[in-house]
Amino acid sequence: ESAFRDLERHLVDRVTRDPSGPVVVVGGGALLDRAFRHAVLQRARVITLKAPAEVLLQRLEGGHERPLLAPDPAVRLCTLLEQRMGTYAEAHACVDTDNRTVDDVVDIIAALEQRRLLCVPLGERSYVVEFCEGMASTLEDRVAACAPTRVVVVTDSNVKRARGSYVSRVVDGLAVPHVEVVLPAGERHKNGTSVSAIWDVALSSGIDRDSVVLGFGGGVVGDLAGFAASTLLRGIPFVLAPTSLLAMVDASVGGKTGFDHATGKNRIGTFHQPGAVVIDTGHLATLPEREFRAGVAEIVKIALTHDAELFESLSHWNGTTFTPSDIERAVACKAQIVAADEREQGDRALLNLGHTLGHALEAHGGFERWLHGEAVSIGTVLELRITEDLGWTRKGIAALAARRLDALGLPTSVDSAALRAAFRYVASDKKRSGSVIKWPVVEEVGRSRMGSIAISELERVAERLRLFS
Amino acid sequence: ESAFRDLERHLVDRVTRDPSGPVVVVGGGALLDRAFRHAVLQRARVITLKAPAEVLLQRLEGGHERPLLAPDPAVRLCTLLEQRMGTYAEAHACVDTDNRTVDDVVDIIAALEQRRLLCVPLGERSYVVEFCEGMASTLEDRVAACAPTRVVVVTDSNVKRARGSYVSRVVDGLAVPHVEVVLPAGERHKNGTSVSAIWDVALSSGIDRDSVVLGFGGGVVGDLAGFAASTLLRGIPFVLAPTSLLAMVDASVGGKTGFDHATGKNRIGTFHQPGAVVIDTGHLATLPEREFRAGVAEIVKIALTHDAELFESLSHWNGTTFTPSDIERAVACKAQIVAADEREQGDRALLNLGHTLGHALEAHGGFERWLHGEAVSIGTVLELRITEDLGWTRKGIAALAARRLDALGLPTSVDSAALRAAFRYVASDKKRSGSVIKWPVVEEVGRSRMGSIAISELERVAERLRLFS
Repeated sequence: ESAFRDLERHLVDRVTRDPSGPVVVVGGGALLDRAFRHAVLQRARVITLKAPAEVLLQRLEGGHERPLLAPDPAVRLCTLLEQRMGTYAEAHACVDTDNRTVDDVVDIIAALEQRRLLCVPLGERSYVVEFCEGMASTLEDRVAACAPTRVVVVTDSNVKRARGSYVSRVVDGLAVPHVEVVLPAGERHKNGTSVSAIWDVALSSGIDRDSVVLGFGGGVVGDLAGFAASTLLRGIPFVLAPTSLLAMVDASVGGKTGFDHATGKNRIGTFHQPGAVVIDTGHLATLPEREFRAGVAEIVKIALTHDAELFESLSHWNGTTFTPSDIERAVACKAQIVAADEREQGDRALLNLGHTLGHALEAHGGFERWLHGEAVSIGTVLELRITEDLGWTRKGIAALAARRLDALGLPTSVDSAALRAAFRYVASDKKRSGSVIKWPVVEEVGRSRMGSIAISELERVAERLRLFS
Repeated sequence: ESAFRDLERHLVDRVTRDPSGPVVVVGGGALLDRAFRHAVLQRARVITLKAPAEVLLQRLEGGHERPLLAPDPAVRLCTLLEQRMGTYAEAHACVDTDNRTVDDVVDIIAALEQRRLLCVPLGERSYVVEFCEGMASTLEDRVAACAPTRVVVVTDSNVKRARGSYVSRVVDGLAVPHVEVVLPAGERHKNGTSVSAIWDVALSSGIDRDSVVLGFGGGVVGDLAGFAASTLLRGIPFVLAPTSLLAMVDASVGGKTGFDHATGKNRIGTFHQPGAVVIDTGHLATLPEREFRAGVAEIVKIALTHDAELFESLSHWNGTTFTPSDIERAVACKAQIVAADEREQGDRALLNLGHTLGHALEAHGGFERWLHGEAVSIGTVLELRITEDLGWTRKGIAALAARRLDALGLPTSVDSAALRAAFRYVASDKKRSGSVIKWPVVEEVGRSRMGSIAISELERVAERLRLFS
């Protein structure tokens, strides 16, 4: 078998690199190797065909000719299906072939060709991010695919005003009972009171475990709705429709949920992967310019840590004119990172660039002075200056990042009094372990590693750079 | 390899059934098959020896003689260790052999022989339940093994009064900063206010991701502390020390956390497996008799659904005199069920026997009239009467269960007006899916399956049995 698998992998590797984009049909074992499967998912569209075990056995006429199903095909097939459940879930789509003709299945696959799909491969918790532009039917389809008994829509007052008719089209199309929670807008409402409001409405409406929470809004709405979904009845399905650029590129992938506490940001939360994410860039037309720019900061951050080409491409962005493929690229980049480290025990923490000082600034500003992305923009430049001073980052990168962020309309510095005052929040950072902070070190644009720095050392460097005076 | 594995499995199967209890040393691949590994874990003590990959390679002198490590031993070894992480975690103990002599390792293993250990095998989320009698050092050891930077002790006012000096011995022995949250006692405090109290104390004390929440108390304390641990900083380690019989046999295994809402019990929560559980039956000496009896109800329930021998053995219990091995047996039984179905998508729901009507009664009684176990006792008899009437349960089992519960000092019936009034809570049960309830059907003592019943049908049967009049 292992020789066969080697040959098979070699062949799949070659054809999935073929620029003519052939359709390749492989057996269930072809993508068993995780690293190879993830590589293929990035350059090809992977579709799993499924059918119940008894149907598969019928098609195999008992399966006694198959060496991998010996000695008892029925038992062995069920075992294989169970073992491979997480593997088969890592796909751009899964098509049920039971009670369908070959032509039907081909039509379904052909129709998928038109859709812009990204797979976040996390075993049985895998899900698909679908991109579109001004298409409420895409979100409607994704929610409908969950076959919900009830839908709990969570949004905020700003989004409701700007995109209310879009949400109405989605829920009206579903023809399923729904309730709506409209939270007050803004980071200062990212708290336990908002979570309780969602819990109350959802539970009073009579949800069951097949009900779906639909988070429709920016990062705050997504984090609150995701947390509520992860804790209602010990976890019910969650569909996320980010409406701000920040939420599209940052919060849409990764399953982080939560809310703020008096002692700091996001200090209470869970990891709960959504069932599906729909990114409709049509929402960006109604997004206030300042919020759009704040979202760009997260794209710059991911480019600095992981993708030098994306960093280059951002020089073509101008005002609120954007390149949709750059947004897809940033999300795909994040998906890769999350797939390799779902619970942030390793390289996922690289995405915290700018967030240690950024969060401290936000907390100091009472979560009102700066938008999250603005604080991250300032934090990114400050953190790069510090790691440059330590000799960990190539000289000049902090200035390069500052120029790019500035050209995109983002703040890159802060008065020293505010920074000094914000600093005390660093000591209560989630990423702290004892008196040491782990934070990302950009060595070169697009290349980064995790580094550790004692809080006392951090203060010394900040003093040396006169950041506090 | 597969022929070798067959021979190996055959041999391990035989020696682990040997009544003389030999020590057997096997390679890392011997217990790869999940079903076989779980069977071995039930009849033998499994200890994993571990060392860093580079140490293993040194010991293997490069590993070039090992066929399973070809062609590149270093790469292959790391891959195998990663793939088998969840497998190796399913053990009664894991001993680090790095920088230890063979004699040291033998001493550690020999010392483990004295301890009463049960493994709950859940891959990387596996943990050990340790049983003891009046030994605060056992709990201290288990918390110390987490190497916590800080300990957040969660308990309630009753437990604090009865077992306060025990907790003091544990935390004093640890020599790690700690804070204590003493919640008001009782099911009616199983709410968001109590959770907020834990969040506030924990976050204000400066916890980080290596801090540990220690839940010390009954089921309510365990569920609240577990929920807080699962949501603080998106999840920190949790050690559980149940002090009531109910919490020992029911809440100690399974990772269910949560709290009540105005619309029903346990409607907000998470699945969060503890890092360790210590069951010290010494606590039972200070448990009020009524609470002790309420705990016995859950043992009867697990015996009815899964273990006929345990059901027999319970006839020897008398007042508050108990058989410790029966408690271990009930916990082991629950561990097996949870291992097979962690998220309650299948047979774990069998443990809900008596809970559909039991929860409804509790809700109707404002969570004050009956203790949880008392409500489950009544609910069990009622549910058995209903499934007997439907012909799903052998005639006579409801009466048999009622006699056993009655002999153990538990209530087995309720006035019809209360039951009628409680019935409306059934419609909002978490286990409901649309208008159908899934509930356990005991076919014979010790044997059960899941069944579905429409709420309308349930009401009809209850009317026919004159439960409401």
